[in-house]
Amino acid sequence: MRSSRFLIATLKETPSDAEVISHKLMLRAGMIRKSASGLYNWLPMGLRVLRKVEKIVREEMNKSGAMEVLMPVVQPAELWEESGRWQQYGPELLRMNDRHDRPFCLGPTHEEVITDLIRNEIKSYKQLPANFYQIQTKFRDEIRPRFGVMRSREFIMKDAYSFHNSVESLQETYDVMHATYCSIFTRLGLQFRPVLADTGSIGGAFSHEFHVLADSGEDDIAFSNGSDYAANIEKAEALPPATPRPAPQHLLQEVATPGKHSIEDVCAFLKVAPQQTVKTLIVLGEVRADKTQPLVALVLRGDHELNEIKAEKLTGVAAPLTLAPEARIKDELGLSIGSIGPVGLQIPMIVDHAAAHLADFVCGANKEGFHLTGVNWERDEKAPLVADIRNVVAGDPSPCGKGTLEIKRGIEVGHIFQLGTKYSEAMKARVLDENGKEQTMIMGCYGIGVTRVVAAAIEQNFDDNGIIWPDAIAPFHIAIVPINISKSEAVANKSEELYAELTKAGYDVLLMDDEKARLGAMLADTDLMGIPHRIVIGDRGLEAGNVEYKGRRDLEKQEIAASDIVNFLQNRIAL
Amino acid sequence: MRSSRFLIATLKETPSDAEVISHKLMLRAGMIRKSASGLYNWLPMGLRVLRKVEKIVREEMNKSGAMEVLMPVVQPAELWEESGRWQQYGPELLRMNDRHDRPFCLGPTHEEVITDLIRNEIKSYKQLPANFYQIQTKFRDEIRPRFGVMRSREFIMKDAYSFHNSVESLQETYDVMHATYCSIFTRLGLQFRPVLADTGSIGGAFSHEFHVLADSGEDDIAFSNGSDYAANIEKAEALPPATPRPAPQHLLQEVATPGKHSIEDVCAFLKVAPQQTVKTLIVLGEVRADKTQPLVALVLRGDHELNEIKAEKLTGVAAPLTLAPEARIKDELGLSIGSIGPVGLQIPMIVDHAAAHLADFVCGANKEGFHLTGVNWERDEKAPLVADIRNVVAGDPSPCGKGTLEIKRGIEVGHIFQLGTKYSEAMKARVLDENGKEQTMIMGCYGIGVTRVVAAAIEQNFDDNGIIWPDAIAPFHIAIVPINISKSEAVANKSEELYAELTKAGYDVLLMDDEKARLGAMLADTDLMGIPHRIVIGDRGLEAGNVEYKGRRDLEKQEIAASDIVNFLQNRIAL
Repeated sequence: MRSSRFLIATLKETPSDAEVISHKLMLRAGMIRKSASGLYNWLPMGLRVLRKVEKIVREEMNKSGAMEVLMPVVQPAELWEESGRWQQYGPELLRMNDRHDRPFCLGPTHEEVITDLIRNEIKSYKQLPANFYQIQTKFRDEIRPRFGVMRSREFIMKDAYSFHNSVESLQETYDVMHATYCSIFTRLGLQFRPVLADTGSIGGAFSHEFHVLADSGEDDIAFSNGSDYAANIEKAEALPPATPRPAPQHLLQEVATPGKHSIEDVCAFLKVAPQQTVKTLIVLGEVRADKTQPLVALVLRGDHELNEIKAEKLTGVAAPLTLAPEARIKDELGLSIGSIGPVGLQIPMIVDHAAAHLADFVCGANKEGFHLTGVNWERDEKAPLVADIRNVVAGDPSPCGKGTLEIKRGIEVGHIFQLGTKYSEAMKARVLDENGKEQTMIMGCYGIGVTRVVAAAIEQNFDDNGIIWPDAIAPFHIAIVPINISKSEAVANKSEELYAELTKAGYDVLLMDDEKARLGAMLADTDLMGIPHRIVIGDRGLEAGNVEYKGRRDLEKQEIAASDIVNFLQNRIAL
Repeated sequence: MRSSRFLIATLKETPSDAEVISHKLMLRAGMIRKSASGLYNWLPMGLRVLRKVEKIVREEMNKSGAMEVLMPVVQPAELWEESGRWQQYGPELLRMNDRHDRPFCLGPTHEEVITDLIRNEIKSYKQLPANFYQIQTKFRDEIRPRFGVMRSREFIMKDAYSFHNSVESLQETYDVMHATYCSIFTRLGLQFRPVLADTGSIGGAFSHEFHVLADSGEDDIAFSNGSDYAANIEKAEALPPATPRPAPQHLLQEVATPGKHSIEDVCAFLKVAPQQTVKTLIVLGEVRADKTQPLVALVLRGDHELNEIKAEKLTGVAAPLTLAPEARIKDELGLSIGSIGPVGLQIPMIVDHAAAHLADFVCGANKEGFHLTGVNWERDEKAPLVADIRNVVAGDPSPCGKGTLEIKRGIEVGHIFQLGTKYSEAMKARVLDENGKEQTMIMGCYGIGVTRVVAAAIEQNFDDNGIIWPDAIAPFHIAIVPINISKSEAVANKSEELYAELTKAGYDVLLMDDEKARLGAMLADTDLMGIPHRIVIGDRGLEAGNVEYKGRRDLEKQEIAASDIVNFLQNRIAL
């Protein structure tokens, strides 16, 4: 491609409404433009990347044996009523009526449509397993779309749905999809991790998220340094301490802590480490027959964070997890937040393993302005109900039994999921089994956020000068930057020659042939746009038979013999 | 692809709601399934064809220098308000409010979005011309979706929009697009014609439609047998007769024609040819200052059809063309339809060239139950205002001056259009010209109905057994049909060997490896699915070293040496 015939829409200034680096750089590099809140136009530069991601996803999905289909963006309400989601889904589901006043929605996902399609096409266990995918536009009416295409309203997903007559068959396809996703993200050139994920309210045996690792990621991921265990922190199990609880050494004391409510303040005041304290959170319990919700206390070590996903699965705790209103705590317990502790607390209490393992700890005294020190379970308060309710932290032993955990941040770009019969049961998607009996199909689903991958790749690969694309998804592999193309015939000729040769060798090459562009601006643009390989061609180099090469991550440029440059690049860029 | 791993969803029966052959065959061949009225799922077999069409369109568009972009399906109302189309567009524009109650629509077309995008990106004449295209989902809420994907509500279009600073530049890009469309439809393997089309109310110098020729087409296209002139019948000019009008031979007579109103009845009764009669249609004229609409008479030869597009462009006639209500004709003229004629009619009258060329003709007597014979212009009624207001018919002289016209039927699959400044003016899409002065950009637009092409290809290529795909867009080039694959090792081996060889040679091959399928059913399926080349492999043939080949259009099958079949196919199928 010649820059003179391509819309290079780079911006010097960062648009003010962009919060994250990928959004800033996608705007600055001329990849996307906003059409309305959460709706983006893909400019030619951005679309080249998107299409490369799509191509890799499609090739690997085909290789896995999945069959590509295409389902409509607009979906009839009646299918969503069958599955029950027409009522369950909130305002993220954009609903509309057609000219005949029939209700439809824009599909945020296609479980209903595929289940409807397949229940009519697949009638026998002999046709199973079968896995269908599409790469299609989705719409989710986010309350606050942001971060560019990272959380837009309209986006492109690869979604796949598999159908089975046994859980073993589901597991097989699930494993194939796991391997396929690993191939996809490897081919995309991204550092990623498949991590165990929570299966949410749907249940099902397994769910894995695929995360692109990036410091700016929204999710914390726990890894073992001694195995390939990795889990979303929502899901990662905190093992109970392996040693017995130490014996009490101190007497229970009530100490005045005037105005000290936070763990931080109390620790500083009493000169103890947060690890030697516990904090008590009051949440709402499960709704009772009389429709009241009792209060429940959750007790954690002072330095630990509550894991809401774990907590809301506890017996007796309401899901979604809801902190008790301060007024109710005041009314029913006569206490204010920051003075609560487990000793003598007259409501059900669940204590995290780590908090339950402490001896001689500090906690609120259930009396405004006072804390207890030297507290010991069993001696000062009866042995509590213990559970895993905290987020793991770096240094925790890995739940796999090998090594300790590290925490990194990730951006979720894929999710594979054993759906079970949630949709097939509700929508009566059945086949005849070996004995001619009707059997409900078992389903899996497998998503990749195709547009999101583009943003995540940038979050992982950028520097102060702009994007740094992996070769596999770069809009152009190579930029040829001629110095004074309009004045030097030698430069013009060599640029054209290399452009032709490298294009013929199969590379996507951007020839910066705009006669009026300045060298500095061209170099800044190729850096900003993230083109991974750059050749500068000038008279001075050519006199010595050389061109100048710089990889986008290189600190130094190199002089390469012009006669050798194609070979040199072929050794660096795998197609 | 192996049939055992592919969803072959052929149907023996034709679904009752399919009216046209392409819809029937797409359902029967397992290409599409209806999700809701006008919304279709593309099954794997259908999607393979759709993707091949897309690929050819994309490659040729890229070759033309157009840049691919991707604009959102969901569009903000404010852009449509800027162009004025939010008010103009009818219920085909599916409108909705998002969760914040802001109005949006599903894009039936993207002029507003691209004009908004480009007015912000292109600021100087130096960046022009530029042509942007996308292949994207559109939605048009048809009042009565039908004919499967031929007139569905959700469909895929390739739409392109070009921007210019002069009409000469627009004409250049328009010509490139014309040539590109010819390349696309040629590569698709379709018989097509670019035809001059009406530019509608937008004006503009030129518009061409691209029609796939098919007897079932909705449009009539007029061709010259002496040149490459072709035009939609809406647009094709009927030349005035080249000879002078014959002199009157008969006297004017009033004859009783009791109960005879139609041309057919009158001709039979009076024993004259329709060519010797005229018919008079009463339509509404342009709205006057006092908001009344006068009646206007349009006079045609009895055998000719009114061309509404031509008629509504006449001075003094209202657009869209509207027949006058019978009651008004009765009230104001005291006449009923079927008795009206030009002689003595007291309203403005416009007469088609052919009707104005008649001598001694028959027409209504403006008196219930009577007609006039031997009528002559100038002698019996003053010389009328004459214009071209009829559809051309086969045998008319071609307006290009060479040859006579033939009429064929076509399916419109593409349309190229010189838009001018309709959108750029309304939306203030301006650039700075050579003198630093603001100039409104001039636009062109260029569409191809990608999903429609698939249906049109079938309307042109089918027989009693099913679809007959052109090689270029066939879901599979070749079907390998083994006889008794589960019983004969020789058959199984040769089938696998050929499958591997032909796949390696670059062909898309369907190996019918389902062990339980019967030969007859497999042959019927490959015919129905339209696979253009078929190899049957059986023990008997193999004993003689042969396999059996049949092209989808061939009447006879042939025995080909197994050792030669790859070579044989390479000579028949160009990749």
